[in-house]
Amino acid sequence: MNTILPVTLNDDASKLILLDQTELPAIEKFLEIDTREDLYEAIKKLRVRGAPAIGVAAAYGLLVCMKKETYASIAEMQKDFSALKSYLASSRPTAVNLFWALNRMEVRFVSECEKKASSPESILKGLLEESLSIFTEDQAMSMAIGKHGLALFEKHMGIMTHCNAGGLATTGYGTALAPIYLGYELGYDFKVYSNESRPLLQGSRLTAYELNKAGIDVTILCDSMASLVMKQGKIDAVIVGADRIAANGDTANKIGTSGVAILAKEYGIPFYVAAPTSTFDLKTAIGDDIEIEVRDGEEVINGFGRRTGPEGVKVYNPAFDVTASKYITAIITERGIIFHPDRESVSNHLKNK
Amino acid sequence: MNTILPVTLNDDASKLILLDQTELPAIEKFLEIDTREDLYEAIKKLRVRGAPAIGVAAAYGLLVCMKKETYASIAEMQKDFSALKSYLASSRPTAVNLFWALNRMEVRFVSECEKKASSPESILKGLLEESLSIFTEDQAMSMAIGKHGLALFEKHMGIMTHCNAGGLATTGYGTALAPIYLGYELGYDFKVYSNESRPLLQGSRLTAYELNKAGIDVTILCDSMASLVMKQGKIDAVIVGADRIAANGDTANKIGTSGVAILAKEYGIPFYVAAPTSTFDLKTAIGDDIEIEVRDGEEVINGFGRRTGPEGVKVYNPAFDVTASKYITAIITERGIIFHPDRESVSNHLKNK
Repeated sequence: MNTILPVTLNDDASKLILLDQTELPAIEKFLEIDTREDLYEAIKKLRVRGAPAIGVAAAYGLLVCMKKETYASIAEMQKDFSALKSYLASSRPTAVNLFWALNRMEVRFVSECEKKASSPESILKGLLEESLSIFTEDQAMSMAIGKHGLALFEKHMGIMTHCNAGGLATTGYGTALAPIYLGYELGYDFKVYSNESRPLLQGSRLTAYELNKAGIDVTILCDSMASLVMKQGKIDAVIVGADRIAANGDTANKIGTSGVAILAKEYGIPFYVAAPTSTFDLKTAIGDDIEIEVRDGEEVINGFGRRTGPEGVKVYNPAFDVTASKYITAIITERGIIFHPDRESVSNHLKNK
Repeated sequence: MNTILPVTLNDDASKLILLDQTELPAIEKFLEIDTREDLYEAIKKLRVRGAPAIGVAAAYGLLVCMKKETYASIAEMQKDFSALKSYLASSRPTAVNLFWALNRMEVRFVSECEKKASSPESILKGLLEESLSIFTEDQAMSMAIGKHGLALFEKHMGIMTHCNAGGLATTGYGTALAPIYLGYELGYDFKVYSNESRPLLQGSRLTAYELNKAGIDVTILCDSMASLVMKQGKIDAVIVGADRIAANGDTANKIGTSGVAILAKEYGIPFYVAAPTSTFDLKTAIGDDIEIEVRDGEEVINGFGRRTGPEGVKVYNPAFDVTASKYITAIITERGIIFHPDRESVSNHLKNK
């Protein structure tokens, strides 16, 4: 099945090509990025979003920005690498995959620098290889999550999802949507309910867009409708992505996720999180330790071309919330399934490889 | 305190004056209505909304529409009354106050027709009196709900509300917002959190507008943020209005209310419903018997002035949900408070007068 590729490189790897997801679903516009300022802006403004896609974009983008420079020495290159890495890392404080990808590029960078006969050219070649590895691993990750996740679903199920953890959030089938895409190919006939996910409407703009485009039965809901459709028996399972998972399984994801999880528990519906193991942040012991990004209130009251709140009013606009692991039936990773996630089961899952 | 009067009559009672709430908060536009088609449209399109305000608008509007006609006989008037009543009753199937007000006008109409020496003029005079009674009783109702409700709140509380059950929904202080207005006058220093209430955003467009205008501390939230702010300890109580309350206390209100109630229960926060006794529909035994109005999906994906969902996608747009009475800490009416609402406590509350 063809899904849209939201992050790629142009033919000579001199530009990062990003699908501008802020313009969806009305316009499919691809950005060509080769400056650090544009890359920073694209990540910060969510033109590229979804933890895995951000990771790939950061790796490709770092490469492209460095290729553009002319370095007189490796020392100069090292200095610039550090500055660029810090700058990019500051674009989104909650996106652990951003740091993960940048750190991985740094490990490769250091190793290339330490090689005998290293040169700016050889180092850039190493960085290209590393970013391509991140990309291909991401595609394999999506497929593996899809296969593991599909074991939890049955034919004809009604499935709710929140925000977008689909093909647009990765470079493959997505995380939360991967079992849905795979199920579609196998004739599972799912009915998907996509919460619109205010304030930025990734659920209606992106998830409904990509599923609809793929021919999958999808219905848009306002976030406020989740309780009713669960009560009506339309939902057999909920599956969402994750932005960061603490060592005990507490999961930071798009604002509203924790509310959906609590409703699912109340109605006796399983609640699944799908995310690559790179999303786990074992240095974060519990969810309460995760910093919540608070964004500009204008996104809420002036986000879609029409002012919807009075002048001068206060707005609170947190971008994420944390779903306590007690509400999570299972976490699906590329390695398999963590049932009843807690410190022990998470730790076992991550070390057994 | 001056609140905006959303429904009134002009000086010679020939026109119904409605604040067009679909234009708020950007524009304060008052409509002058004297035809049944315009009245039907205004109710259907939510230009006037909120159960008590709809009741007053229907009573005033019915009067105004009949005044405009020239009736050759009382029989002709009776025929037109029936047609007009049926027509207006079909404008919003979930609004029990609409039927309540129309039925009350009908009782008066029948009684006026039966009087000796009745004439079209004397009948219209009776209908004017009845509609003014509905209006003044509505103002007294708001004040009484405010007083009873305030007993449940303490100074400096954080209070969440959903949708708009304020001055704009009534002709007084509102229902859910009445204790907040009264508390403000008494220096209670509440911090109000107003869920924006998708899809029509009555929480940000109307509740935040009227509270902000009155000088009350109000913060707009997306509906998806309720769980997080509750977890953060910012909310000490939730109070909402009601569109219809079944005999067992199950409450139909704006879509999303049941989700907020379930979250409040999970976080140990009291959840209150404020509504006049006219909102109870004892012929409806339980909430499952309440018909849920399903509205046009365009409201969801084309409501902000910019398209937010893909072409051809399915949208489900229920306007209400039902909050089971087990999630409701208390129902506040103009008569007092029903703690632990159920069939027995509701029945006792309604008959003791």
